[in-house]
Amino acid sequence: MTGPGLRPGGRSARVQESIHSAVRALLEEQDRSTVTVPQIAARAGVTPSTIYRRWGDLSALLADVALARMQPDSEPANTGSLRGDVQAWAEQYLDEMSSEPGRNMLRDVQSSPTPGLCVTIIGGQLQMILDRYPDQPKPGVDRLINLMAAPTVFRILFSPAPLEVEELHRLIEIAFSQ
Amino acid sequence: MTGPGLRPGGRSARVQESIHSAVRALLEEQDRSTVTVPQIAARAGVTPSTIYRRWGDLSALLADVALARMQPDSEPANTGSLRGDVQAWAEQYLDEMSSEPGRNMLRDVQSSPTPGLCVTIIGGQLQMILDRYPDQPKPGVDRLINLMAAPTVFRILFSPAPLEVEELHRLIEIAFSQ
Repeated sequence: MTGPGLRPGGRSARVQESIHSAVRALLEEQDRSTVTVPQIAARAGVTPSTIYRRWGDLSALLADVALARMQPDSEPANTGSLRGDVQAWAEQYLDEMSSEPGRNMLRDVQSSPTPGLCVTIIGGQLQMILDRYPDQPKPGVDRLINLMAAPTVFRILFSPAPLEVEELHRLIEIAFSQ
Repeated sequence: MTGPGLRPGGRSARVQESIHSAVRALLEEQDRSTVTVPQIAARAGVTPSTIYRRWGDLSALLADVALARMQPDSEPANTGSLRGDVQAWAEQYLDEMSSEPGRNMLRDVQSSPTPGLCVTIIGGQLQMILDRYPDQPKPGVDRLINLMAAPTVFRILFSPAPLEVEELHRLIEIAFSQ
């Protein structure tokens, strides 16, 4: 039996949502390096100790918010063809991750205890696309992740320039030609 | 005109080297989260302010050391064949980066002002291999990076499990079949 305080959407979930949304708002208004726990607490209407008790420190909270933002708001675009859907997904992913908030998300999420969830989230999106076209030959989800998401993210974090969209298209071609 | 204090290998370079080697020694002896600037300073025989003046903070110093460690000690292994050399390089890279010190290096180097040097270093190694076989058809360095280094690193940082060596071999096959 769970008490009313433990039901999903209950008090605890509402507190978490108000803290997450305070973080998102502050990250839009000011540089990430200047955001502090007391600021977030004030904006969310909680005490700093509520945040420290729940997350331990600022980097764990930022990681949690980053992971939640990795969850897409909607299903992947449906262009009418398998290749088109995959390409649209990959282009949007490259776009979003290369942006300043995207880069910060990628860095923050690494401080999460479960950064591996990133691949689970991406894999879920790609599987949704593949399932739309059950009768067509296609690469597996892991291969698509290795050929599209991996070079996108690797070049954002470790290269002087992001992945070029022409190379992304060639990598998609390679994935489908195997 | 540069004074004697500015020559390469002079006093400033020696101080830097003793600080770097103090960091490397401490990282071998204890958990990275417990290493502090005063500890490093004591081990290197300098004052903490020398470190703060030069690097600003601990994460910048760790990033600098990580980047220096990314520089390989030797030329890539020469197995006698292009494909063999590429495969040996990729397997060693996967091995090294999946280790605990490798993961930490990947995280630390992102705090460097020039994380893009990673790709430059990797590219230099792969180019050395390609140059050994001038008359053979081969993929470009950027393609090799996208198909080998990118999935290796992406899965270390964002996936519950590292890249499997069988998939690495298939990706190398794909790179050479284009």
